[in-house]
Amino acid sequence: MIGAGSWGTTFGKILADGGAHVTMWARRAELAQEIDEAKRNSRYLPGINLPRSMRATADLRRAVDGATQVYLSVPSQSARETLRSLRPLLRDEAAPLVSLMKGVEKKSGLRMSQVIEQELRCDPARVAVASGPNLALEIAREQPTAAVISSSSQETAEDVARRARNRYFRSFVNTDVIGTEFGGVLKNLIAVAIGIVDGVGYGENTKASIITRGLVEMTDFAVAYGAQPGTLQGLAGLGDLIATCQSPLSRNNTAGRLLGQGYTFQDVVRQMEQTAEGLASVAPILQLARDAGVEMPIVQQVKMVLDGTLKPRDIAPHLTTDDDTPQGEGTQNGQDDRGGALRRALERALDLLRDGGRGARGDRP
Amino acid sequence: MIGAGSWGTTFGKILADGGAHVTMWARRAELAQEIDEAKRNSRYLPGINLPRSMRATADLRRAVDGATQVYLSVPSQSARETLRSLRPLLRDEAAPLVSLMKGVEKKSGLRMSQVIEQELRCDPARVAVASGPNLALEIAREQPTAAVISSSSQETAEDVARRARNRYFRSFVNTDVIGTEFGGVLKNLIAVAIGIVDGVGYGENTKASIITRGLVEMTDFAVAYGAQPGTLQGLAGLGDLIATCQSPLSRNNTAGRLLGQGYTFQDVVRQMEQTAEGLASVAPILQLARDAGVEMPIVQQVKMVLDGTLKPRDIAPHLTTDDDTPQGEGTQNGQDDRGGALRRALERALDLLRDGGRGARGDRP
Repeated sequence: MIGAGSWGTTFGKILADGGAHVTMWARRAELAQEIDEAKRNSRYLPGINLPRSMRATADLRRAVDGATQVYLSVPSQSARETLRSLRPLLRDEAAPLVSLMKGVEKKSGLRMSQVIEQELRCDPARVAVASGPNLALEIAREQPTAAVISSSSQETAEDVARRARNRYFRSFVNTDVIGTEFGGVLKNLIAVAIGIVDGVGYGENTKASIITRGLVEMTDFAVAYGAQPGTLQGLAGLGDLIATCQSPLSRNNTAGRLLGQGYTFQDVVRQMEQTAEGLASVAPILQLARDAGVEMPIVQQVKMVLDGTLKPRDIAPHLTTDDDTPQGEGTQNGQDDRGGALRRALERALDLLRDGGRGARGDRP
Repeated sequence: MIGAGSWGTTFGKILADGGAHVTMWARRAELAQEIDEAKRNSRYLPGINLPRSMRATADLRRAVDGATQVYLSVPSQSARETLRSLRPLLRDEAAPLVSLMKGVEKKSGLRMSQVIEQELRCDPARVAVASGPNLALEIAREQPTAAVISSSSQETAEDVARRARNRYFRSFVNTDVIGTEFGGVLKNLIAVAIGIVDGVGYGENTKASIITRGLVEMTDFAVAYGAQPGTLQGLAGLGDLIATCQSPLSRNNTAGRLLGQGYTFQDVVRQMEQTAEGLASVAPILQLARDAGVEMPIVQQVKMVLDGTLKPRDIAPHLTTDDDTPQGEGTQNGQDDRGGALRRALERALDLLRDGGRGARGDRP
């Protein structure tokens, strides 16, 4: 396991509790020593006892020596650097490389699996990503959780899922890496919207409406960039979205709540030690949405609140548009989408015919 | 508006606040008088001021006299009786009949729109149903909410949606009455499961996993009985499910929480004044699921907790089955479903070709 933050350490515990031999790599020698000897990570997982079998080292070579699966959990904006150090050390050409990292690289706009493929110059079929409703501390406390392991190779996904499971953690598989990764990025934007209405004082109907309509926006966006809609309706989309929106610890939620209470964007940035991922992604995601002709009215309204051009308490009534004509619940780009829906339905029918239905795994019909 | 309980009165307020002339019918003359004169319904909506324009009567004939739309919000198990009294009074053969009632008639297994069609002997195209994340008290407090109006006739749905909207309430439309109505029934079962894990003390990951996987079960069931999957992923399925699962006031949630804390089914029934709808539906829904060959592992586990054969704290790890093979995230009936998915994809493609895409409204592609 490359990286010993709260999520990397928690995932190492998941694997060890499932019977795997886990070696953690931590950049700081003191942290590696604490994990290895005291079976604790007091900075990132205070109060959690780590499995007795878990080892840790600050030596990257020793960490991956003999590894049959390599998991990556380092900060996404500095992942390239670690991957470059890692590249000459990976001997086993078949060992799956599993990304636990969420986010899009800012300078390139690439998803983390793409960054891994570039830096390790490996076959995409070796790369997998894990996502889902995964608040680290709850899993570390062994509360039952489900997740998704996604790889363009069904075999790789199943290999990883067989390791990443134990009595409190269950892994499903799919082959839609794009949808799985975008789910983890887009949910942060909707979590900001939920935070805003929470800050205003609105209740469960409003939040449920925003989550439901927000999921449509997430799906429209991800599908425009090649995802399968079913993925967004699964654990990596809906599941992650709900858990994030309900977590009072989420930075995106907190940022939204402050905005909803009337603080300005500048106040919020000043008040929080670092910008919440969701706030930083609003403008770039809206640009990508415009490029693809996708409407994202909720995210658009979050931007207006950030810009100070919409009062937080006015965010929700306009759940989609101000148009007086009743709308269907599906995607919002009307006529365009009907063509898209037909094309997708036909493509799906062809896929199903072509591979005898095996391609249906992980995709909602 | 036939019926002046909390939901009927709230919906009357929605309509009046949108500019409609609303007359409420209450069985009890004192309640009709309170609404008509004091613009209050102190029993069902304490503290809420009703619109000045709202009228009320205990005389069914006067209530529907000249009505261009008739809304029905009476207890579902005694709806037939009211409908029979209503039948000779309805003169306008074109006025839409809108069901605000959730549930399935126990003795017949019919959905409420079917009961209306039987008793009023009307064209199904006149009947609409309203559903969504609709906790009445929050809407009565004018918190922004979205809902779905569904009718087999797009025109009827749009007619109703144009009335049932105002600055805090937005109505979407679809033509999938089956999916819209089953959403409102099935979410109660998943809300019991959420209550159970809440009672045990599990956190947001667990609940998000159950909501996500529970939605798959709801969708599988409803689709087997003729619904479109997109409806369940919309406001009447997912939206209603999230709002119900988050509401601490929900009876189903409360019943689940008591079970999760270790009370037996008998204790819970004794402790609560009446059985929660979700508890009563578990066995009949599982029977219908078996008849249709649909697996519902979460609902099955709720039954086992009710029967005392599964400890509440063991409910979640088995989120689907105990099978060790990694599974896809889609529907659970494997090979069978692939055929179904292909058939549905082809049917959908044909529908889209046939009506130039108009059938796509309200359905997620």
